[in-house]
Amino acid sequence: MADQKENKKLVAEITSMDEDFTQWYTDVVVKAGLISYSNIKGFMVIKPAGYAIWELIQKHLDQRFKDTGVQNVYLPMFIPESLLQKEKDHVEGFAPEVAWVTQGGLEKLSERYCVRPTSETLFCDYYKGEIHSYKDLPQVCNQWCSVVRWEKETRPFLRSREFLWQEGHTAHATMEDAEERTKQMLQVYSDFCEEDLALPTIKGQKTEKEKFAGAESTYTIEALMHDGRALQSGTSHNFGDGFAKAFGIQYTGQDNKLHYVYQTSWGMTTRIIGALIMVHGDNSGLVLPPKIAPTQVMVIPIQQRKEGVLDAAYDIAARLKDYRVKTDDSDRSPGYKFADQEMRGIPVRIEIGPKDLEAGKCVLVRRDTREKIECAIDDVAAKVGELLPQIQADMLAKARKHLADHTFAATSKEEFTEAFKETKGFVKAMWCGCRECEEKIKEELNVTSRCIPFEQENLSGNCVYCGKPATKMVYWGRAY
Amino acid sequence: MADQKENKKLVAEITSMDEDFTQWYTDVVVKAGLISYSNIKGFMVIKPAGYAIWELIQKHLDQRFKDTGVQNVYLPMFIPESLLQKEKDHVEGFAPEVAWVTQGGLEKLSERYCVRPTSETLFCDYYKGEIHSYKDLPQVCNQWCSVVRWEKETRPFLRSREFLWQEGHTAHATMEDAEERTKQMLQVYSDFCEEDLALPTIKGQKTEKEKFAGAESTYTIEALMHDGRALQSGTSHNFGDGFAKAFGIQYTGQDNKLHYVYQTSWGMTTRIIGALIMVHGDNSGLVLPPKIAPTQVMVIPIQQRKEGVLDAAYDIAARLKDYRVKTDDSDRSPGYKFADQEMRGIPVRIEIGPKDLEAGKCVLVRRDTREKIECAIDDVAAKVGELLPQIQADMLAKARKHLADHTFAATSKEEFTEAFKETKGFVKAMWCGCRECEEKIKEELNVTSRCIPFEQENLSGNCVYCGKPATKMVYWGRAY
Repeated sequence: MADQKENKKLVAEITSMDEDFTQWYTDVVVKAGLISYSNIKGFMVIKPAGYAIWELIQKHLDQRFKDTGVQNVYLPMFIPESLLQKEKDHVEGFAPEVAWVTQGGLEKLSERYCVRPTSETLFCDYYKGEIHSYKDLPQVCNQWCSVVRWEKETRPFLRSREFLWQEGHTAHATMEDAEERTKQMLQVYSDFCEEDLALPTIKGQKTEKEKFAGAESTYTIEALMHDGRALQSGTSHNFGDGFAKAFGIQYTGQDNKLHYVYQTSWGMTTRIIGALIMVHGDNSGLVLPPKIAPTQVMVIPIQQRKEGVLDAAYDIAARLKDYRVKTDDSDRSPGYKFADQEMRGIPVRIEIGPKDLEAGKCVLVRRDTREKIECAIDDVAAKVGELLPQIQADMLAKARKHLADHTFAATSKEEFTEAFKETKGFVKAMWCGCRECEEKIKEELNVTSRCIPFEQENLSGNCVYCGKPATKMVYWGRAY
Repeated sequence: MADQKENKKLVAEITSMDEDFTQWYTDVVVKAGLISYSNIKGFMVIKPAGYAIWELIQKHLDQRFKDTGVQNVYLPMFIPESLLQKEKDHVEGFAPEVAWVTQGGLEKLSERYCVRPTSETLFCDYYKGEIHSYKDLPQVCNQWCSVVRWEKETRPFLRSREFLWQEGHTAHATMEDAEERTKQMLQVYSDFCEEDLALPTIKGQKTEKEKFAGAESTYTIEALMHDGRALQSGTSHNFGDGFAKAFGIQYTGQDNKLHYVYQTSWGMTTRIIGALIMVHGDNSGLVLPPKIAPTQVMVIPIQQRKEGVLDAAYDIAARLKDYRVKTDDSDRSPGYKFADQEMRGIPVRIEIGPKDLEAGKCVLVRRDTREKIECAIDDVAAKVGELLPQIQADMLAKARKHLADHTFAATSKEEFTEAFKETKGFVKAMWCGCRECEEKIKEELNVTSRCIPFEQENLSGNCVYCGKPATKMVYWGRAY
């Protein structure tokens, strides 16, 4: 009885997602030990359970980058105001939301520095010194760091005044090379999300209105959360030669003439952890895909004081040494341990009690489906080896189904308006391509264009808002 | 002839270390492609070749941390002024050298934030919320991040206004536990330096004068550079309950009473890359120990246009897939490639030309000793497998010999003064333990106490400076 009470209390601490999705999200990030709020408004502490997920994200993504020839570097965290101002669109986009350093030690700075909100200007300054000849191209660098943007409303992982990310910055001899790299990195993000995070996304291009400050074109992957809202999950920008002209980055070509370089940048942030939570989580807490789960298997002994049980639990863990496995040998009740393992989203738990031990068996429980699987102790390593990829695949399939089930098409203004009465998911609709329609849609329906998907469909000949001839199909949605 | 000229030009770009050690150092960090100066005074760009070393340092050190139960976290980069001021000694030590943020977006901040110079105050604020019961102890966290200290004189890696580091912060139930962790982490640093970086160090305690702002005791590892100067390479601090009292961090013990926690912190920075350069480097550039070398083997084809040579080079590289290997197939001359590989400190190069190929052989050249070893192509993997650990061991032995040969003892003021007429290395001498002598020694001889080594010797009964009874033997030196 004590078990059950303790268990209930732990689970009761999470608000149901159907009741209040926002509160459910906050409960999960805190109760699963991912973050704690700091006393500095808009800044959070990423706790061990949260940071361990980020470390695995870094490991997988960094390897994918390196496989395409990316090299890591580290650039200064401060940008002098005059440097930030060199590219007109870029400074307009970022200046209102940066933090300014005005004093260093005891000296008042003659020029303000901003804490980097992103590092295009610093990379331009660096590349200008590195690039002289066509032999110096391409430059394909990335940095893992933190950045600061002075957001008004903040939420853990989704929007905070400081966040962790990677930002890749490249320079190329031609516009074609730059475009190829821009799309290549979007594909890297998309593959990473599908294959490692079990997150399906929509790949496409941002509209002129939504593109990055200073970019010629911005590509994006958009994910759909459990509550029907969209989350921009990674972006890749082609700058053309705009920054190169602003910063004077030129190289001598094989033709012995000076040419401007063409640049790209691309980034993914800790907000992707928010996507993991909101796509896979349930009313018991986190559900982590095995590839990104800091602990993949938790062995939980039942009646652990009975002879042999604890040793059997350790033995099972030892058999699973090729996986990220832990044994919960604390003095909490099994009920509490189950609830805790579920809250933390550990993909598999293994229960082992006196009766199991006697029969030479144990019970595997999947976090995603709660399916229970009996297994001979001798077979446990082989079974876990099958189960983890199965869970990974099933989680992706489930998320894909959710995305498909919550993507709608609208061919008239009425349908479009009706579809957004509630936030059910993406709505595909034709668009004339004019900014005015996009702005009015946002104003009237509180809906933004998420992307012009690479996979176009011809739903009708006319813009869903103004009725004029359509040029593109667009994914619309309400976004985080 | 063209080869030789090109080669000479490349090597000639490095000043000889005997002529001007400072310029040699600057030449190496730039020519080996480790850093480039940024346009922001005191800030540098860590380029791919430099950052790849840091990534390997992180990998090795992080694993050693995790083996002792350390968990990684991430805390905010800003500290409100009121938080920084909570511990009196700490704020006195750091306030004069921090960068201040006074504006966030368009709003002027009501309270200044400093960019973290170190995060003791933030960890205290965090731990105060996490620690309630003895069951919440110990807390053993670490973060990898960048910090800012407004240094006046800066040099790449050794002293810069921003640097990368790790900072561990722990909280314990007792002073004994804190002391044990403090010393444990010093040992981790010492083992890491010896075993991974081939850097021997002296382990000991800092004097009261030299200890960290706010610490009860500071332990340090001190390395000796090629020019006889010391470099503080890693420090570990025991704070006792000083911070806990300043921040009110208490837990309920098993005795049901409230107790203050005892805390530690410990850090190692990118300055350790400076130590690698200045201990192992020579007049041809960097010499990297194999465990930390981003590229361990460079295969260089000779007369690569001759049939079969380039394929043989690729074949050799393929045989070495278990190592970090590259093939220099650029259109540079072999002489240039040799000089470049030496400059970058790659531990082994493999030369393969038409005659070698005919004989089924290749030539391995050690970077550290320049020894040439003929080897059948079929045996190349086995030979490299033997050679890399041998180079690692030999580099440590050589550095140990340098440390021993440049450590002197002085038992009188005259000997002590004489020993520091030039900067030859460490001088061991007895000390009375009073701060006044330490300050006068610094003033008169421009020499600081590096540490009170754990391995004490009784050189004489009297303080080398004042002649009063001695309490400790101290390592003295001129330091970076």
